[in-house]
Amino acid sequence: MRMVDLIEKKRDGHDLTTEEIQHIIKEYTNGQIPDYQMSALTMAIFFKGMDQRERADLTMAMVESGDQIDLSAIDGIKVDKHSTGGVGDTTTLVLGPLVAAVGVPVAKMSGRGLGHTGGTIDKLEAVKGFHVEIENDEFIRLVNENKVAVIGQSGNLTPADKSLYALRDVTATVNSIPLIASSIMSKKIAAGADAIVLDVKTGAGAFMKDLNDSEELARAMVSIGNNVGRNTMAVISDMSQPLGYMIGNALEVKEAIDTLKGEGPEDLTELCLTLGSFMVVLAKKASTPQEAREMLKKAMEDGSALETFKLFLSSQGGDASVVDHPENLPQAAYKFDLPAKEAGYVSEIIADEVGTAAMWLGAGRATKDSVIDLAVGLELKKKIGERVEEGESLVTIYANQEDVEEVKAKLYESILLSKDKVEAPPLIYKEITEG
Amino acid sequence: MRMVDLIEKKRDGHDLTTEEIQHIIKEYTNGQIPDYQMSALTMAIFFKGMDQRERADLTMAMVESGDQIDLSAIDGIKVDKHSTGGVGDTTTLVLGPLVAAVGVPVAKMSGRGLGHTGGTIDKLEAVKGFHVEIENDEFIRLVNENKVAVIGQSGNLTPADKSLYALRDVTATVNSIPLIASSIMSKKIAAGADAIVLDVKTGAGAFMKDLNDSEELARAMVSIGNNVGRNTMAVISDMSQPLGYMIGNALEVKEAIDTLKGEGPEDLTELCLTLGSFMVVLAKKASTPQEAREMLKKAMEDGSALETFKLFLSSQGGDASVVDHPENLPQAAYKFDLPAKEAGYVSEIIADEVGTAAMWLGAGRATKDSVIDLAVGLELKKKIGERVEEGESLVTIYANQEDVEEVKAKLYESILLSKDKVEAPPLIYKEITEG
Repeated sequence: MRMVDLIEKKRDGHDLTTEEIQHIIKEYTNGQIPDYQMSALTMAIFFKGMDQRERADLTMAMVESGDQIDLSAIDGIKVDKHSTGGVGDTTTLVLGPLVAAVGVPVAKMSGRGLGHTGGTIDKLEAVKGFHVEIENDEFIRLVNENKVAVIGQSGNLTPADKSLYALRDVTATVNSIPLIASSIMSKKIAAGADAIVLDVKTGAGAFMKDLNDSEELARAMVSIGNNVGRNTMAVISDMSQPLGYMIGNALEVKEAIDTLKGEGPEDLTELCLTLGSFMVVLAKKASTPQEAREMLKKAMEDGSALETFKLFLSSQGGDASVVDHPENLPQAAYKFDLPAKEAGYVSEIIADEVGTAAMWLGAGRATKDSVIDLAVGLELKKKIGERVEEGESLVTIYANQEDVEEVKAKLYESILLSKDKVEAPPLIYKEITEG
Repeated sequence: MRMVDLIEKKRDGHDLTTEEIQHIIKEYTNGQIPDYQMSALTMAIFFKGMDQRERADLTMAMVESGDQIDLSAIDGIKVDKHSTGGVGDTTTLVLGPLVAAVGVPVAKMSGRGLGHTGGTIDKLEAVKGFHVEIENDEFIRLVNENKVAVIGQSGNLTPADKSLYALRDVTATVNSIPLIASSIMSKKIAAGADAIVLDVKTGAGAFMKDLNDSEELARAMVSIGNNVGRNTMAVISDMSQPLGYMIGNALEVKEAIDTLKGEGPEDLTELCLTLGSFMVVLAKKASTPQEAREMLKKAMEDGSALETFKLFLSSQGGDASVVDHPENLPQAAYKFDLPAKEAGYVSEIIADEVGTAAMWLGAGRATKDSVIDLAVGLELKKKIGERVEEGESLVTIYANQEDVEEVKAKLYESILLSKDKVEAPPLIYKEITEG
């Protein structure tokens, strides 16, 4: 099998066989296929695509390129949730304890990563004492007992995907549905997921700006999952503005606590109930999303979701007092308001620009070596469609610095007002349960 | 300027600017742009093409990536001829002395190369004593005096093209008209051509099997030439069967001598007159191809073409007696005939298969280290459309080995007969004087 022939085959629009895809990924991982051939192939895939069978084969070949996490010692169906990423996305913090409270095992492997705010682990570390450096046995025991635990990423998962992603990033081949879909799915499957719920973001603040592209990606991933025996469902949700009000680490923990109490922002609560009900159904703890939603609402109302969160925090060394006393979370030294310069209706909140402003305060990492300030961030006071009077606050800035002029200027550029009434965007565009 | 952005730009169907193309070729030659980015770009070019301006820019960027031969000390317009390659193509040997005889300066830089037979230098070395190891000054003096000389390739011409071609060869991006056209044109221009005549072969034995593709390539090259100030004309000629009768080194020298005398094969003679008349026009030694053709025919008839050939050979140390005494060329030890197994009409002569048979005899190099046997080769006795009786010879095999069974078997597979009358293919499909 010569790689040049396989590139030509794809270039000319033919399907690669299972054996050919396995060969390519295996030899690429081994260093036997050079980057310059792989990048030519990915560009050919960009133009010619891959069919469902090829996508499933590529996903599983990448899963098999490295270690695979074995979660079989955990009782029940392990459902993982993945978001394609956005700004102020607190869903993971909420969903873990929420679905665990109704008996769905949540065995979360999580990372830190770059971005506007920290990753899930960074956010959780805003809780004093909380840590994810636990042994694998302990992790499994905790999930079996509490139904929820988080562990740091370990092992050599999907090395083919890592190399391939780095290559695509510098060869303008990131933006290919089959490649994005198989990359995401391979990571979830290698991390041990039996079933997967996907939150595909769409809009200005998302990787996929266009609704049709988002839907295509969602369907591609649902197909892959179902083709490789991992039941998968997806939601396409809005990221034309940040989700919820909080953007920051401790701030998002506070918002998650509010949401688990049933007192969170409407959009965050609704998205968590939707994603959560899919997780409950896939874990076979309810037979319909409607039934699941009722279970989750009850867990918010009767305090069991909040209790699960406390147990989860304390089991991993965290100070669970923050749940009842959020003032025990890291507090920023300064608070500033961003007064509206004129009256009107909020017409746009450019999510990634707002995220950048939060990063400038120290809420996220610009580079791998940046140190995150867990206390700082932004609290949106208004969302798209809301009325604001001149001088009324648009945002509260939580800072550990006195000079926030640049941040303010950025925010003024990112939050646009209109004289005319503006419709709030829908939160959920589509629910996709079949590829 | 980031390469990833340039790849994306081309991927999305936009034109690259002159400055961008220059940057890419310069930095690729310097090793600053890695192969894996270049191969992604070439695949994007495969799908999205390049317009005329981009092709001209790419050609000149490759010309400027290395040394350029300065032929300005030679009087007159230096016209180079290039063939896209075929089997038994003796045109270069004929055209040099032929157009020189009417005053067109021919300063040929030539190579050896791999293939069914040797390159032009190998063929000329069938003439005892002939050599191309001459100093540049001597080369220029010879062209000024005799109007024709051949020198071996030297200098670091178009290194960008060399690297790029090697990369395209292993990434399935050879077959792209803009890349083929700029590769060929850059080499001719770097070698000092003021004007260029192209012989684009079409048919089963050619790189371009399809007439439309051949025409597209020819037009692409003519456009490039005219856009960069090198007047260029092209002929699309048949390579569904070998040109002339001879395939081999000494054998083709003999055939060239016959042709210069006006006693050569009809197809070879006609193609040389057509290409030659374009060369004469481009060199401004005649104002129309018709006028040029009359001059060339006269040079064949009055012996001046043959005299020029003798002078050319002897000036570079060659034994010019071969012109009048072809038996002084290397002779093969054995001659075999290939008798037709049945009567009929020749319907196909698969050119590259016949070429391979010649290579098996030793006429060409399979690898860089192969040693060529200048004496051996094939003489076709029949061309497509000709009648053959059972037992009549199809081919004479000139060999230095007693056992030619494999060669014979190959030839029987490559020369097909039909019971029904067969039309001979046209020799020249098109003359292209504008891009």
